Amino acid sequence: MSLVVVHTLILAAARAPAGESTDAVEQWGTFELVLRADNFKGNGFTEVRFDGAFESDGVTILAHGFYDGDHTYRLRFMPDRKGAWTYRTTSTLPELDGRTGQFTCVAPGPTNRGPVSVRNVYHFAYADGSPFVPIGTTSYGWVHQPAELQERTLATLKTSPFNKVRMSIFPSRSRPKAEKPLLPFPLSADGSVDRTRFDPAFFRNLETRMTQLADLGIEADLILFHPYDDGRFGLDQMEPEVDDRYARYVVARLAAYRNVWWSMANEFDLLNEKSDADWARLIALVQSEDPYGHLRSIHHSQRMYDPSSSALTHLSVQNGLAVSDFGRAVQFRNLVHKPIVFDEVHYEGNASRRWGQLSGEEMTLRFWMGTIAGTYVGHGEAIAREGRPAWLSAGGELVGTSPSRIAFLKSILRDAPPEGIEPIDPYYETHVAGKPGEYYLIYFGREKPTEWTFDLPRFELRDGMQFKVDVIDTWNMNVEPLESLFTIAKHSDYIFRAQSAAPVRLPGRPYMAVRVRRVAQ
Amino acid sequence: MSLVVVHTLILAAARAPAGESTDAVEQWGTFELVLRADNFKGNGFTEVRFDGAFESDGVTILAHGFYDGDHTYRLRFMPDRKGAWTYRTTSTLPELDGRTGQFTCVAPGPTNRGPVSVRNVYHFAYADGSPFVPIGTTSYGWVHQPAELQERTLATLKTSPFNKVRMSIFPSRSRPKAEKPLLPFPLSADGSVDRTRFDPAFFRNLETRMTQLADLGIEADLILFHPYDDGRFGLDQMEPEVDDRYARYVVARLAAYRNVWWSMANEFDLLNEKSDADWARLIALVQSEDPYGHLRSIHHSQRMYDPSSSALTHLSVQNGLAVSDFGRAVQFRNLVHKPIVFDEVHYEGNASRRWGQLSGEEMTLRFWMGTIAGTYVGHGEAIAREGRPAWLSAGGELVGTSPSRIAFLKSILRDAPPEGIEPIDPYYETHVAGKPGEYYLIYFGREKPTEWTFDLPRFELRDGMQFKVDVIDTWNMNVEPLESLFTIAKHSDYIFRAQSAAPVRLPGRPYMAVRVRRVAQ
Repeated sequence: MSLVVVHTLILAAARAPAGESTDAVEQWGTFELVLRADNFKGNGFTEVRFDGAFESDGVTILAHGFYDGDHTYRLRFMPDRKGAWTYRTTSTLPELDGRTGQFTCVAPGPTNRGPVSVRNVYHFAYADGSPFVPIGTTSYGWVHQPAELQERTLATLKTSPFNKVRMSIFPSRSRPKAEKPLLPFPLSADGSVDRTRFDPAFFRNLETRMTQLADLGIEADLILFHPYDDGRFGLDQMEPEVDDRYARYVVARLAAYRNVWWSMANEFDLLNEKSDADWARLIALVQSEDPYGHLRSIHHSQRMYDPSSSALTHLSVQNGLAVSDFGRAVQFRNLVHKPIVFDEVHYEGNASRRWGQLSGEEMTLRFWMGTIAGTYVGHGEAIAREGRPAWLSAGGELVGTSPSRIAFLKSILRDAPPEGIEPIDPYYETHVAGKPGEYYLIYFGREKPTEWTFDLPRFELRDGMQFKVDVIDTWNMNVEPLESLFTIAKHSDYIFRAQSAAPVRLPGRPYMAVRVRRVAQ
Repeated sequence: MSLVVVHTLILAAARAPAGESTDAVEQWGTFELVLRADNFKGNGFTEVRFDGAFESDGVTILAHGFYDGDHTYRLRFMPDRKGAWTYRTTSTLPELDGRTGQFTCVAPGPTNRGPVSVRNVYHFAYADGSPFVPIGTTSYGWVHQPAELQERTLATLKTSPFNKVRMSIFPSRSRPKAEKPLLPFPLSADGSVDRTRFDPAFFRNLETRMTQLADLGIEADLILFHPYDDGRFGLDQMEPEVDDRYARYVVARLAAYRNVWWSMANEFDLLNEKSDADWARLIALVQSEDPYGHLRSIHHSQRMYDPSSSALTHLSVQNGLAVSDFGRAVQFRNLVHKPIVFDEVHYEGNASRRWGQLSGEEMTLRFWMGTIAGTYVGHGEAIAREGRPAWLSAGGELVGTSPSRIAFLKSILRDAPPEGIEPIDPYYETHVAGKPGEYYLIYFGREKPTEWTFDLPRFELRDGMQFKVDVIDTWNMNVEPLESLFTIAKHSDYIFRAQSAAPVRLPGRPYMAVRVRRVAQ
């Protein structure tokens, strides 16, 4: 990610006279303007407005700046098109007002594909057009851990299949009690949170981690609120104006990071002090403050927030049952025409609570079930060892058996249709997904078939089409290509069947799949 | 239903000088005022406004009158409270304007429980507070058939379990081609539909049938639009103002029938000439014209209409897959906090199309699957015999094997909790529904267990509670009460288990269920 580089460059530029040109910024990288206002003695977090209008090729985009402590104000911007950009600031402080400048936006670097947004109703893509297939994990409190543990988490992520991590801005219950709390707000002398200020040091660490995630190709699904305060800091029951200021500050600081997603809350329905109207206000605020329209969701415990809300880009669902057997997850797509992300489907683990007791096999099965339903599934690991908190809470190492199988699924999906996996015949058929006429995954779950008759739903099929078949063992991570080609003919009003071919032999084990791809003709 | 009686009485009254008192009207019965306007020579369907304000105990309700042909105008009203009512008419015609009168609303008759509305989020109740458990069927075109066949349909319904019938106002494809079409609009000389008028004779027959259904305790789920015109009458592509006038006329004529439900369309998404905005307009129109807030839904083919729309009281779903196995239908309740009615789950039948090929066993299973998911299922029969159209299209006789089993389910539900059947542990458990601590149905579907261990989810349970158990064969329609009582104790964080009792023996056949009811202590 280009943030650090640009940051340095622009820092230098900002110390030069206003109006001077700066060096280049990558497309979807982060431009940063840093200004000082030494004469202002008030509270820069609450009393100063500082904005910038960025213009290129006749299009103007407004971004909000923020106070970073020590009389320093920053204005970040993520340009979405290459070419010349100019900017002009406005502020209630004279030192920050009317500053102008320009920079050039250049082609993105090799790992920079831009922010992710919704594509094809139920799916995602990077801004450069390449598909984004979420393979998410959750580690709520990893940025609240000691630095050494944060580094180990990054090392784990680097070799993991995961390209999205759900993580919380508010502190995790798993943080070591002995240490100074890591909070977005400073602590007052009496140990309470100062709700009129923010702690720039906390955010600087968070931003470092965001950048490191971006460099690893990982989206940061940032959770703004959660109900796990336990009476400690009162973060679950702040005044609406404090909630709003906090959300505004988070967006001002982080929206220019291309890999940010806004998860408004974890288990919002357990935040008893907030009504659905409060959430609607906060979601609308994040939507209006963010110049780039990063993805927005809200995660629930028992009761889902209005899934049709046009302010939410996709669903973030807690529901293990929906992906534990055939024909369930697909029902979400009937009701909600957005991407469905089952972010919490229970966790692989040895927890005493039933939400953390999945076997690796079951966790893997849920990924596959979600995939063939045209939806997405998230991983979590609740395996505590020798008193160490689990990955789910604190990061560290992954020790479960599902991540390698999830990596295998990811490798399968790498050459799947870029438009996304779709159920082929969703009101009648539960095992088959892909792209009609081109690509099919047939998944058998816990069933142990010994053969598969080559039957496919009729859509986009014609007599004489030829297909090749791979037998996939999703647990043992093996792909066996079959040598013979399969030529189809119409078998009934609804089915095309391979002609003159024996059924495909399967080993009678669970967790098998078949992949069918049309041969170019 | 009291309509006919009141109609006669009020007819007499209307011929008496205005302002005279009339006889009594049942609560939720239909008051009708009939007036003539012989001097008006224009089009009474399009050029006359005729309304009535009905007042009782300080509450005023506005109802719309309608032209019934032959210089005759009618104003119907369904009083929802007992006591003295007065009314005053307003109209653009002097003969219909400023007429006043009064009547007394008396207690409803023994079969009159009032209109049905939503209760307990996912369920229904009559206005008198008694639960309404929809056991629906579909016969799209039964009122378009020859009178003799309509009578046979009513005779069939009388001995059937069904308490709701989906039926279309527009003609069915199954109507005998040789006969004069039965249409809500008159035919012009050239055989086309006259969109500026309605055919009162058509509606009078429909109203007779509505009244007969009410007398049988059957709700009429009236479908206003459908896409099956086949280019014949153009009813699927009328101008918006004609659609609106038609909807207004239907509501003016029929809203005072307590058993009417408004189904805005069948397979609305196949009506290519209408946008979602058209539907929103029509739904809002029906909502605002109907003084009583009768239930409103819209039925789809592939794509559902916005399920969160506050103008729709419940979901009317076409989806067989959702009720063909465990854990599917319940997902709809997670997303939509309304009653979920799977009105079309494919049909018992011998049709050539796959939507009409269910066995009676499968149709019955779908009713049970919907029931234990806390949702509702509708029946349909597509069994054609000797060239006669099926029940689904034209009514007549039911010859399938599911109706008697559906009647058996209805008998089981008769003593179920009046609040409605709820999934007990919906994110973990798929087979158990009822009311925690009181009443449980455990359904096994196609599984063939030989025993059931008495385990129940922990909610509302305490050590020492006692339960009685019935073994239910849902296909062979048998209830076997077990003699012994079951006393429970906590078994784990999530489960209470019967103590010192052998597992419940089951016969190893499919379609079995267990009913568990707490013994009063």
